[in-house]
Amino acid sequence: MSTEEAYRGKNVLITGGLGFIGSNLARRLVSLGANVTIIDSLIWAYGGNLFNVEDIRNKLSINIGDIRDRYSINHLIRGKDYLFNMAGQVSHIDSMADPFTDLEINVTSQVSILEACRQHNKDIKIVYPSSRQIYGKPQYLPVDERHPVRPTDVNGININAGEWYHILYNNVHGIRTASVRMTNVYGPRQLVKHNRQGFVGWFIRQAVEGNTIQIYGDGSQKRDLNFVDDVCDALLIVGADERANGQIYNLGSSEVVNLKELAGLLVELSGRGSYELIPWPEEKKKIDIGDYYSDFSKIKNELGWQPKTSLREGLQKTVAYYKEHLDKYTA
Amino acid sequence: MSTEEAYRGKNVLITGGLGFIGSNLARRLVSLGANVTIIDSLIWAYGGNLFNVEDIRNKLSINIGDIRDRYSINHLIRGKDYLFNMAGQVSHIDSMADPFTDLEINVTSQVSILEACRQHNKDIKIVYPSSRQIYGKPQYLPVDERHPVRPTDVNGININAGEWYHILYNNVHGIRTASVRMTNVYGPRQLVKHNRQGFVGWFIRQAVEGNTIQIYGDGSQKRDLNFVDDVCDALLIVGADERANGQIYNLGSSEVVNLKELAGLLVELSGRGSYELIPWPEEKKKIDIGDYYSDFSKIKNELGWQPKTSLREGLQKTVAYYKEHLDKYTA
Repeated sequence: MSTEEAYRGKNVLITGGLGFIGSNLARRLVSLGANVTIIDSLIWAYGGNLFNVEDIRNKLSINIGDIRDRYSINHLIRGKDYLFNMAGQVSHIDSMADPFTDLEINVTSQVSILEACRQHNKDIKIVYPSSRQIYGKPQYLPVDERHPVRPTDVNGININAGEWYHILYNNVHGIRTASVRMTNVYGPRQLVKHNRQGFVGWFIRQAVEGNTIQIYGDGSQKRDLNFVDDVCDALLIVGADERANGQIYNLGSSEVVNLKELAGLLVELSGRGSYELIPWPEEKKKIDIGDYYSDFSKIKNELGWQPKTSLREGLQKTVAYYKEHLDKYTA
Repeated sequence: MSTEEAYRGKNVLITGGLGFIGSNLARRLVSLGANVTIIDSLIWAYGGNLFNVEDIRNKLSINIGDIRDRYSINHLIRGKDYLFNMAGQVSHIDSMADPFTDLEINVTSQVSILEACRQHNKDIKIVYPSSRQIYGKPQYLPVDERHPVRPTDVNGININAGEWYHILYNNVHGIRTASVRMTNVYGPRQLVKHNRQGFVGWFIRQAVEGNTIQIYGDGSQKRDLNFVDDVCDALLIVGADERANGQIYNLGSSEVVNLKELAGLLVELSGRGSYELIPWPEEKKKIDIGDYYSDFSKIKNELGWQPKTSLREGLQKTVAYYKEHLDKYTA
């Protein structure tokens, strides 16, 4: 059975399903014929946005709720075939200022969800979105899954714990789970209302608005980026493939760019704005990880995933989206 | 300045200070001339026991309190020079049955304590007791600090997160911390009232009571053990030495034994009891890690610690202690 067929007629729960990756995944699953239920708390500073599914709102169910609510999940989890566990606190900056909130969302709530599955739906398959953040400052490049885990911020510590919980419940309790360690993801429906969820969305907004993109340091920091459609491909493959159970996969791209090149490309594609280099703010420098890019050969070799969208093509689509809809993402 | 002199006249806080390692450490610190304050919640199933400090009760302060109480710590942390952060949920079995309690004690409360230090006492030095548990099933032996972290139970995941929080607060917030990854620790004042905190205390009690020690499997599983006095040495060295800040150290012993040999030695030394091999219980087998012993050359080479007490000598002292005081540890 192909990945696409795997979801037809299936009941799929997406936590954080009004957010960036969650909503793109929801849209794809609806198009594949899945019965999609979204849980989202629509916290202002996070990525949830009803506009992300406005045009398909009658084709899925939306349950407003926070994953810190330990009780509702016991009901919502029942009868579901798949859970894409996308809700999370993803700002490194916010996690350092308020470690408790990050811990409640990214660890305690993950345990609630896994315990709910253990009690009420042991047959569900869960996909957990982990992050390159847990590797910390790379000891070698590209970073593969065997690289030591050395988180340099609260968010990285908690995402790492959340990932281990998922793998543990697979190994010990027999609830099928898999983890996908994402690198920088960009694309339509990304949060751009503030700059605390990473640089990519913020750079895109500055370019689209014709502003000056500010880059810390000399702009030579290297990154790999994935277009959100490619990430959704990976999540769907990992969800559908039994070989992925209990496994951890890096995503990534072989198209590595530095931040100056990325900013230049955005300015070119949007036909607006500019960029400048500014000194590192002290508290950001402390948790910076230098160059990062992934070795994603494990998922490529084992499950056949690789990114299909070039950086230029993906950014073009993203810039076009925000030129049309920016007002829906800035309020 | 020697390690012993470092604590004279200093204000030292020990969470879990009525427990096994905490109380042995408190006794040592009192003898070194430190002003010791203990926080302990005296939860029945955990290791806290007033008898552990009964004979020196007028030489230290005891504050009954639970580290999940986020508020009291803000007061108790002030004016302290050292914090030995020994309070924890340490049963792997209990952590699997009730992951939330383990998470609250071993992660959320650690964040509370570190945040309290960040707000009220940035000059404190903190020593965190981590565990070999976080390595999971060894990929090679002996296990050094570079071994991948792959916890196989809830307790291991949470202790790992707690350790990362301590290192992060050292690296980012400048609060001096260090982590000590302990292997199996044994000695006087250890919990022996149930068998959910590891096999060593339970084996000791069975031998002292003249019962049959039950060993899972063929008894060939190898372990290294540290006598509690040697562990206290390590904690004190790491606390006093500025070179330890931000570092992680394995403890361990080059005297590796298998469980059958250990049980045999206990039967010999106590002059009572016996042992038998029984099949693995299913749920314990799932989280068993096979052979384990540590490479502790980092702390040996960098800080000059190594265990001084032979296994025979340590077990002799322990058996003698429980022959005299067992009734204080079984109620």
